[in-house]
Amino acid sequence: MYDSIRTNLNNLKNNKIFELLVVAVIIISALEIGAKTFELPDSAISLTAVLDAFITIFFLFELTIRFVADEDKKSFFKKGWNIFDTLVVVISLIPIDNSEMALLARLVRVFRVLRMVSVVPELRILINSLIKALPQLGYVVLLMFIIFYIYAAIGSFIFNDINPDLWGDIAISMLTLFRIMTFEDWTDIQYETMEVFPMSWMYYMSFIFLTAFAFLNMVIGIVVNVMEEEHRASREDKEPSMSDLQKELREMKEMLLELQKK
Amino acid sequence: MYDSIRTNLNNLKNNKIFELLVVAVIIISALEIGAKTFELPDSAISLTAVLDAFITIFFLFELTIRFVADEDKKSFFKKGWNIFDTLVVVISLIPIDNSEMALLARLVRVFRVLRMVSVVPELRILINSLIKALPQLGYVVLLMFIIFYIYAAIGSFIFNDINPDLWGDIAISMLTLFRIMTFEDWTDIQYETMEVFPMSWMYYMSFIFLTAFAFLNMVIGIVVNVMEEEHRASREDKEPSMSDLQKELREMKEMLLELQKK
Amino acid sequence: MYDSIRTNLNNLKNNKIFELLVVAVIIISALEIGAKTFELPDSAISLTAVLDAFITIFFLFELTIRFVADEDKKSFFKKGWNIFDTLVVVISLIPIDNSEMALLARLVRVFRVLRMVSVVPELRILINSLIKALPQLGYVVLLMFIIFYIYAAIGSFIFNDINPDLWGDIAISMLTLFRIMTFEDWTDIQYETMEVFPMSWMYYMSFIFLTAFAFLNMVIGIVVNVMEEEHRASREDKEPSMSDLQKELREMKEMLLELQKK
Amino acid sequence: MYDSIRTNLNNLKNNKIFELLVVAVIIISALEIGAKTFELPDSAISLTAVLDAFITIFFLFELTIRFVADEDKKSFFKKGWNIFDTLVVVISLIPIDNSEMALLARLVRVFRVLRMVSVVPELRILINSLIKALPQLGYVVLLMFIIFYIYAAIGSFIFNDINPDLWGDIAISMLTLFRIMTFEDWTDIQYETMEVFPMSWMYYMSFIFLTAFAFLNMVIGIVVNVMEEEHRASREDKEPSMSDLQKELREMKEMLLELQKK
Repeated sequence: MYDSIRTNLNNLKNNKIFELLVVAVIIISALEIGAKTFELPDSAISLTAVLDAFITIFFLFELTIRFVADEDKKSFFKKGWNIFDTLVVVISLIPIDNSEMALLARLVRVFRVLRMVSVVPELRILINSLIKALPQLGYVVLLMFIIFYIYAAIGSFIFNDINPDLWGDIAISMLTLFRIMTFEDWTDIQYETMEVFPMSWMYYMSFIFLTAFAFLNMVIGIVVNVMEEEHRASREDKEPSMSDLQKELREMKEMLLELQKK
Repeated sequence: MYDSIRTNLNNLKNNKIFELLVVAVIIISALEIGAKTFELPDSAISLTAVLDAFITIFFLFELTIRFVADEDKKSFFKKGWNIFDTLVVVISLIPIDNSEMALLARLVRVFRVLRMVSVVPELRILINSLIKALPQLGYVVLLMFIIFYIYAAIGSFIFNDINPDLWGDIAISMLTLFRIMTFEDWTDIQYETMEVFPMSWMYYMSFIFLTAFAFLNMVIGIVVNVMEEEHRASREDKEPSMSDLQKELREMKEMLLELQKK
Repeated sequence: MYDSIRTNLNNLKNNKIFELLVVAVIIISALEIGAKTFELPDSAISLTAVLDAFITIFFLFELTIRFVADEDKKSFFKKGWNIFDTLVVVISLIPIDNSEMALLARLVRVFRVLRMVSVVPELRILINSLIKALPQLGYVVLLMFIIFYIYAAIGSFIFNDINPDLWGDIAISMLTLFRIMTFEDWTDIQYETMEVFPMSWMYYMSFIFLTAFAFLNMVIGIVVNVMEEEHRASREDKEPSMSDLQKELREMKEMLLELQKK
Repeated sequence: MYDSIRTNLNNLKNNKIFELLVVAVIIISALEIGAKTFELPDSAISLTAVLDAFITIFFLFELTIRFVADEDKKSFFKKGWNIFDTLVVVISLIPIDNSEMALLARLVRVFRVLRMVSVVPELRILINSLIKALPQLGYVVLLMFIIFYIYAAIGSFIFNDINPDLWGDIAISMLTLFRIMTFEDWTDIQYETMEVFPMSWMYYMSFIFLTAFAFLNMVIGIVVNVMEEEHRASREDKEPSMSDLQKELREMKEMLLELQKK
């Protein structure tokens, strides 16, 4: 009997209309979160409370269906997206009264919108491919961090007395350097230090060139990676390779040699 | 007799000089619109009124020729560019006195300049290819919108009391986040919230990284798409594929085998 | 005798040391121009006057050699770089007293630095390839101009009363739009008009998206063009194409068929 | 006996745990440098002094091992990274009392963090490939410098009287132009000069277009270079080329011809 329930739930889970319903509820929950940021009349506020309860119950219901319908219960919580869904549902079940906690409750509800990603397969694929691309960038990011760290250390040693708000310690300096990398009012910072150290433009210029160059390298690295993967993929499924053709040619040659011997 | 008129009009429509005349009138209408934004002497204003009437009549005349010359009247209004042309011509025919409406009339006339795109085939192809590229970007744009929505919701929950002009509701917050994405005085916003929440730089940094990464992904996606299409196009018309060569090689092998059997 | 002079001059022109001398004089003339922007003692000023005369004479001398050494006098002035060189030399020969003209004379001397491009072959190739890439961009640039023109016309119609300094006429509006495209304090402009027209953010957003999209398209267009040219070039000189291989295979098949018939 | 020591040291040098220890000491030295930028209690300051001595001795020890373990002593100092390591170690050995020098000593210690690059092979490869890419960019960088120089000369001739802080001499002007290239408050500079020279927007626009175009060219140049190298590399090791296949086909044809003759 349990098996027949599971089969029914599995059918329900894969039903196109049910999937659309889930997406619809996520959109409603997103709209509700957006609406709450505006000043609302009392009637609307009580409406959102009802809506909130309904969404929580619906998500709990949907997660239960997905869990029961899953054949392999053990591996259910090995998938990152399932853990994420469960966390969002469970945390929104905790009753919260305290006003400090109310903010946290609101924030958790915001993450419900991210469920859109876990439900729509195309978005899930997109995110997975983004995450897969990250480790390839590892060493370039490390190099960039080293550049930031060294410049921040130098900056806070030399410019500390000029403007402690920008160069107070290494953490503040790294924030300032990130600001310089985005070209956000960076000349104000430069002109300020150039009054004391006229040659300090070299510090800013070299930093901008180094980070721009490292960033460029990162972008090119990604592009080349993506293209190579495309290239390999297209080569693997469809087309015979040059080596395959060469192999066939060699076989034919042997056959010709045998013919000649006759 | 109607047919002979149609043939004549068709010849006229496809005449190179007539096409240049249409482009010339569009340029004149563009110049007239530009001239109107300057302060003009009375004589010039009355001239633009005459010019306006002439352009309206010319466009009506050109559209009529194109409609009559078209063999298939029914499908004429199925082409987006024809609908656009007709709308621009028809709306500029409506007589407008009221001053409020006068602004609208002016705006409609501005869209006449867009007729340049519907008349010059190269521009039409360019726009069509841009529109064709849009759906491929659909899911990345959706992902970016989700990122914006979540950050805007968090922003308006937490920073609302600090500066309601920037974080008042989710709509204003999204505008503020777009401003941050363009790096436009974003550190002012950051320093303001960091006075209350010293860790809020994490909010801005994570947002900038996420959007930059998603944007980068979008660009790479387009580049790869464009190149693949080029690749496929070049493969389809001209060159035999690896598989074609392999097929021929296998046929030859069979022939050799038969020869050996003899 | 004239021929032997020409041969000698030609040898001189192509002499590596002479080429380096020309480059050295151009660098000296560049340094002199740079030095003049600083406040100089009187002795240095009289030195630059001497230097100036020497450079002018040297350039005149070098141009004469190049002209005499050229076999085909008629086509000498058909090359853009020769015309440019002659103009720079001739204009710097004109004696100038008037102070207003003095500025012009200085500017002409600045263009002497550009002679570096006409002398160093690698730079000449770079510039030529840049110029060759321009017409391919023609229609995208035209499209971008149409977008700018339409937005500038709309902007100066609607926002004219809010800030005539930014939206006074279509020319000023286009400058303002260029500023918005570079994200330079664009939110100040936006907030100003949003006070009167709260929905005017749509104007700015749509403009930014359209220009960014058109720009992206332009970049991708160039990349694809460059790569295709590389691809074609590499295909043309070195490697046999797929079709070549197919042709050979077919010839072999015919031979096999004939063998079978025997 | 010396040989056996060398072998032992070589084993130690290539030991995975020893490598991790070196990386750990570099990270500690980086953290120490970061900690020093904060205000520290006296106890912590004396701790950093001890730590400093330990790190200096450890680096000296590690460098000695690497030098002794190296088979070819002469070529040891021909490798850039070894020279860099030796310089960092030797300079931090110099005892410094004077407070002016103290800043220098601190700066040298900052460069210890760069040893991370010389120790981690992946980072070293990254940096080496960056340095290898530089000469290819040489002529584009030279072209960009010429553009900057010419515009700076023109700028300091014409705009000198308007704002000497921005256009005082050619050096300041180049800094101002770099600021304009990063779009940092460039319209302020433009509006200032447009009050005196209303057409000066042409100066800024043409500069922005030229540098953007040159920069774009540089990026595309790098991408094409990187891809060609990838392409060549993949062609060289694995796959037979089209020409190889053609050669084999021709050999087969000869064999067939001989068969026919029989």
